[in-house]
Amino acid sequence: MKIAVLGTGMVGRVLAAKLADVGHDVVVGTRDVDATLARTETGPMGHPPYAEWQAEHANIRLVPYAEAGAHGEIVVNATLGDGSVAALQAAGDLAGKVIVDVANPLDFSHGFPPTLSVCNTDSLGEQIQKAFPDARVVKTLNTVNANVMVEPSRVPGEHSVFVAGDDVAAKETVKDLLKDFGWSEASIVDLGDIRAARGTEMYLPLWLSMMGALGSTDFNIRVAWG
Amino acid sequence: MKIAVLGTGMVGRVLAAKLADVGHDVVVGTRDVDATLARTETGPMGHPPYAEWQAEHANIRLVPYAEAGAHGEIVVNATLGDGSVAALQAAGDLAGKVIVDVANPLDFSHGFPPTLSVCNTDSLGEQIQKAFPDARVVKTLNTVNANVMVEPSRVPGEHSVFVAGDDVAAKETVKDLLKDFGWSEASIVDLGDIRAARGTEMYLPLWLSMMGALGSTDFNIRVAWG
Repeated sequence: MKIAVLGTGMVGRVLAAKLADVGHDVVVGTRDVDATLARTETGPMGHPPYAEWQAEHANIRLVPYAEAGAHGEIVVNATLGDGSVAALQAAGDLAGKVIVDVANPLDFSHGFPPTLSVCNTDSLGEQIQKAFPDARVVKTLNTVNANVMVEPSRVPGEHSVFVAGDDVAAKETVKDLLKDFGWSEASIVDLGDIRAARGTEMYLPLWLSMMGALGSTDFNIRVAWG
Repeated sequence: MKIAVLGTGMVGRVLAAKLADVGHDVVVGTRDVDATLARTETGPMGHPPYAEWQAEHANIRLVPYAEAGAHGEIVVNATLGDGSVAALQAAGDLAGKVIVDVANPLDFSHGFPPTLSVCNTDSLGEQIQKAFPDARVVKTLNTVNANVMVEPSRVPGEHSVFVAGDDVAAKETVKDLLKDFGWSEASIVDLGDIRAARGTEMYLPLWLSMMGALGSTDFNIRVAWG
């Protein structure tokens, strides 16, 4: 499928590379292509400048948001949460398209650990669906580290990934992508409509505490029930 | 051990009964003993009036908060989150005692599902520790239904329970109680200091979504890692 990944950070890169690996036609969208390629500093998670990554992924074109939006039947939101709605607005007409929202609304203004810029009575997933009422938003993958998103076998044993969204067919499309990434049918937990994004985003502080306790980002949770 | 359970709702009753079953000397604390025993209405979760439960648990005395506080070496907070600090204050001098905080700061003012009355930048566990700096607060069990708290085998397979608190010895005491309830050593995940209460409380919306998706309260999560 034709897929646009918005966001040039670690999450966007890992998803774009995996989507291309499994055979999709992938572009990465950014606000200003020249500016993104001109950056020489190492990212906050220690990741190399985009141009360096680009050199190793020649099959994935970097394009402006509008071109990315036009390309993608599926648009993956991997931008920082506080810029997500603006990035998607810059991507043009998204009516009918599937927006896969993997972002968390992180607020680093108080340092680390981040808090959430929206929570409790609302969520980023809901805000995006509200801003693009004719798009079909599916919240998923935001409960695991980027590396685990595309390689769930990094975590031993069975564990779960959530999907939430109002459009049943869009969730089926996203489940197929998740299976491309290595998630089994049984590992996918459908939480219902997009309001459930609230729960998966508010899970972040528990994820951060577990990261601290386990000393690793290669972990996840499995839903156990009778 | 001498244990006081504050709160006469479902959670308080289930915990008090189990603690007595496994051999502890248990009292339940309430604001006004006569008023609690005089109630005849069924509770919001369909539980019977306290007097009815009391008749079946004659070994568990119902006492005012102050008497409960004096009795307990361990004080379990199973009150509604918005009344927890006041209830603990009514329990008298808690210096040196272990406060086991199993409550969530639920706000039902917008109906169901509840939101959280404190979250993101603070938690009920932290508020209690701040209000009682000489007590040793341990947050635990607030991520599962009351029945699962005391009978983890209701959920098949391995699954996890969290502890968070500043006092290492207090956490060991609480781990022993958890083992009394049937939680294995391996199932107990120590998240670190009391700030981690934030994560376990903010997990509530995800728990509520899962309850809706699974149609059951007999579920939990297992932490999976390498």
